[in-house]
Amino acid sequence: MTELTRDVVEQTLEQVRDALDRNNILAAIDALEKLKQEDQVEVFDELDVEDQAELLPRLDPETAADIVVELDSQDQADIAERVGDAALADILDEMEPDDAADVIGDLPEDRQRRVLAEMEEADDVRPLLIHPDESAGGLMTTSFLTLRPGMTAQDAINALREWNPDDEMPYYLFVADRDRKLAGVVSLRQLLVAPPARLIGDIMNRKVISVPVGADQEEAANLIKKYDFLALPVVDVDNRLVGIITVDDIVDVIEEEATEDVYRLGGVPDEEKVFSPLRFSLRKRLPWLFVNLGTAFLAASVVSLFEATIAQVAILAAMQSIVAGMGGNAATQRVTILVRGLALDEVALKDAWPVIGKEALLGLLQGLAIASIVFIGVALWEQSLPLAAVIGVAMVANLIVAGLAGSAVPFVLKALKVDPALASSVIVTTFTDSCGFAFALGLATLALAYLKV
Amino acid sequence: MTELTRDVVEQTLEQVRDALDRNNILAAIDALEKLKQEDQVEVFDELDVEDQAELLPRLDPETAADIVVELDSQDQADIAERVGDAALADILDEMEPDDAADVIGDLPEDRQRRVLAEMEEADDVRPLLIHPDESAGGLMTTSFLTLRPGMTAQDAINALREWNPDDEMPYYLFVADRDRKLAGVVSLRQLLVAPPARLIGDIMNRKVISVPVGADQEEAANLIKKYDFLALPVVDVDNRLVGIITVDDIVDVIEEEATEDVYRLGGVPDEEKVFSPLRFSLRKRLPWLFVNLGTAFLAASVVSLFEATIAQVAILAAMQSIVAGMGGNAATQRVTILVRGLALDEVALKDAWPVIGKEALLGLLQGLAIASIVFIGVALWEQSLPLAAVIGVAMVANLIVAGLAGSAVPFVLKALKVDPALASSVIVTTFTDSCGFAFALGLATLALAYLKV
Repeated sequence: MTELTRDVVEQTLEQVRDALDRNNILAAIDALEKLKQEDQVEVFDELDVEDQAELLPRLDPETAADIVVELDSQDQADIAERVGDAALADILDEMEPDDAADVIGDLPEDRQRRVLAEMEEADDVRPLLIHPDESAGGLMTTSFLTLRPGMTAQDAINALREWNPDDEMPYYLFVADRDRKLAGVVSLRQLLVAPPARLIGDIMNRKVISVPVGADQEEAANLIKKYDFLALPVVDVDNRLVGIITVDDIVDVIEEEATEDVYRLGGVPDEEKVFSPLRFSLRKRLPWLFVNLGTAFLAASVVSLFEATIAQVAILAAMQSIVAGMGGNAATQRVTILVRGLALDEVALKDAWPVIGKEALLGLLQGLAIASIVFIGVALWEQSLPLAAVIGVAMVANLIVAGLAGSAVPFVLKALKVDPALASSVIVTTFTDSCGFAFALGLATLALAYLKV
Repeated sequence: MTELTRDVVEQTLEQVRDALDRNNILAAIDALEKLKQEDQVEVFDELDVEDQAELLPRLDPETAADIVVELDSQDQADIAERVGDAALADILDEMEPDDAADVIGDLPEDRQRRVLAEMEEADDVRPLLIHPDESAGGLMTTSFLTLRPGMTAQDAINALREWNPDDEMPYYLFVADRDRKLAGVVSLRQLLVAPPARLIGDIMNRKVISVPVGADQEEAANLIKKYDFLALPVVDVDNRLVGIITVDDIVDVIEEEATEDVYRLGGVPDEEKVFSPLRFSLRKRLPWLFVNLGTAFLAASVVSLFEATIAQVAILAAMQSIVAGMGGNAATQRVTILVRGLALDEVALKDAWPVIGKEALLGLLQGLAIASIVFIGVALWEQSLPLAAVIGVAMVANLIVAGLAGSAVPFVLKALKVDPALASSVIVTTFTDSCGFAFALGLATLALAYLKV
C-alpha cells in the first residue's frame, strides 16, 4: 500500500514539474489536487520554493492550508516571504489558530500586522502570538469544544454534531464551569455509552491533569507520555481552560527534542537542516568551530611543553595521539549515555556519585584492557619495551580521566542549569586530549633515558 | 499540580522504604496503594530490585500489572527473574496481550513455557511471541473491538458498552468483513453523530491505511506521524485485520529510535543505560573502543612516516593535533545533520551529489575562516611565518576533506544498507585524522628548510 502511494507521488511530481516548465499552472494544480492531502504535501515539498510560491496562491485556500501546515517551519517561512499578504491571510484563515500563529510568529513584525489585518480569524490567532513557540501555550489550539457540567449527554452529542468536523477532534472533551475554570473531563466513549438524560457533571472525571500555559513544551510532552493521554488541557494561573494540546502535536515535540539532543552532542545549532542555504550553514556552524579551535590550542599548548622530549623521541608524536584519542572515544560513550539519560529524566542529579564511581572504575578496567593491547602493539611496532610501558601506563591513566570527566561534566552542567548536551563533549574532550598528551609526554620525559635509541 | 504530585511521591517513597526496613510489607503495600497508578510506578521505580520483587507478588495482580507495564524492558526482565512462575502468570494475565508478550519474550525459553502454562490468557499471548519486538506485529495489541459492515450504529454503541473499559480504547474502530478482511474505519465521533439505525457499512470510510504485520516498527511510526493517526490497523498478507497499534505505543517507538541514533553516533550499543551493571557496560562498550584503537593506530602510522621532520621541528607535534582535531569537529557537524536527516527521511540517496557539493564548498569556506585565525595564532605563538603558512594551508585542505568525507560517508553507508549512525563517525574521523597529520607534516617536510630555527 505504501509502495503504491510512493509511485503515485513520483508520477504526480513529474506531471507537476512538466506543467510548471510549460507555464501551465492550471495543469499543475489539477495534477496536485487529484492526490490525497498527505501525498499533496510530499509532492509540494519536492518543488523549488519559487514554484511553490507560484502554485500556492492559486490553490484552493483550504488545500493550501493543509499543505503549509505540514511543512517544517523553515520552509513555511521561505514561502510566507514570497506570497502576498491577502493570499497568505486567506490560507491562514483556513488553519487551526495554533498553526496559523506559528507561521505568523516567524514573520517580521510589520508584516505580521499587515497579514493579521487581512485575516478574518485574526482574533483567534492574536492571543496565541504572545506564547513562545516552545511553551505549552505555543503548542495548544484554542479552537475546541467545551462542555458544561449542567449539559446532558444528549446535549453534548448535539453540540458535537454542530461542531465543525474539520477541526481537531480529541478523544477527550473537557468540562469547564461558569467561570471557565477546568472542572472535569469526559471521554467520547463515556458520552457514547451514557444514558442520554444523564448530566455531564455526573459522568465526568473530576481528577483532571492539566499543564500551565507558560510551561515548557517538554513538560507537556512528558505528561502525555507518562499518562498515555490523547489530549491535555492547558490552563492559565486561575485554572481557566485556555487551550488543549493533542498527542499528534506531542509526537512532533518528542522528535524535535530528540533532534536537539543529537544536534547539540554533534556541535550543530538546532535550526540547521541538510538543505539549509550555504550562508546560513556557514554562519551557524562557524562559532562552534571557533570554540573548538580555542580548546585545540589549549591541548596543543600541553604538547609544546614537551618539545625537548619530542625532539629526541619523535615517535612520541604518533603515540600521543593514540592516548588522547582513545580517552576521547571512551569519554564520548559515557557522555552520550548520560546526556540521553538526563534528557529522558531517567537519571537525576542525586545519582551523580554512584554513577561517577561506576564510570571511574569502568575507566580503569577499560584502560587495563586497552593498555594491554597497546603495550603489545607498541612493543612490536617500535621494538621498545620501555616505550610500550610508558604508553600503556599513560593509556590507563587517561581512561580513568575519561571515566571521571565523562561522567562528572554532564552532572556539573546539569547542576549549573546548562543543557548537558550543549557543552559536555567539548569540555570532556579538552580534558582527555590535554591529559592524554600530558600523561604520554610527561611519562616519556621521566623515562627519557630508557627511550632514546 | 505537578509540584503537588511530586511531594506525595517523595513522602510515599519514604513510607514504603521505612515499612520495608521494618519488614512490614503490609504497611508498604498500604502506602503504595493509596497513590494514583502513575505515581505508584514512580515510587516503585525508585526501590531496589530486591524490594520490588518482594513487594510485587503481594500487590493486587491488576495493580502489579499496571506498574510492570510502565517499567522499561531491562527492569521488567530483572523483576521477572525474581518472581515465581505462578505470581508472574497472575500479573501477566492482567496485562494487554502485547505488553505481556514483551515481558515473556525476554524470558529464557523453558521459563516462557512454564509461565505460559500457568496463564489463563496464554492463547492471546502465544501468537504475539512469534513477532519480533521491533516489528509492527510486536507493537500491536490483539485485544480490540471489530465492527461489521452490517451492524447499525446502535449495535456498535451497544457493543462498545459491553466492551471491557479497561482495555485500550482507540478513537478509531476498524471494520472487518466476513473473512476478517479489513473493510473500513469509523471514528467514535462518526458513531456518536450517526442516526442509530444507520449501517456501519454506510458510515465507514473505506479508504483505510494499514501496515503489514511484519513491517518495521519505524514504518508504523512514520505512517502515524505523517497522517496524525491515533490508531493504525495491522494486517496479514491476506489483508486480514490481526491487530491495532495505538499512538501511545508509537510515542515510545519514536523515543527509542531517537535514542538509538544518539547512541550509535556516540559509539554506544543500544541496550545500555546509565544504571546497567558494570560488567554489562564493560562488555558492551569495549568492542567499539577496540575498533577505535585500530583506527587510532592507522592514523598514528601516518605520523610515524614523518619522524625525521618532527625530530627537527618538534612543535609540529602540537600543530598536527590542531589540524586533525578541527577536521574531526567540522566533519562531526555534518555527519550529525546528515544522519538525523536520513533517519527522519528528510534526505534521500538521490540528494547525495548536491549535498556533497554544498558541504565541500562549505568546508573550503570554513577552512579559509579558521586558517586565517590559525595563521595569526601560530605566527604570534611560534614567531614563524613559514610555520603559520604551513599549518594554515594544511587546515584549509583538511577542512575540504572534512566536507567531502563528512557528507559522502553517510550516503555511502546508506547505499550499502548499513545504518549511517553506526559507522559514519569512526570512518570520517579516521579520514580527517590521517589527512590532517599528512597535510601538516607533509607540507612541513616540503618546507623544512624554512621551518628550522
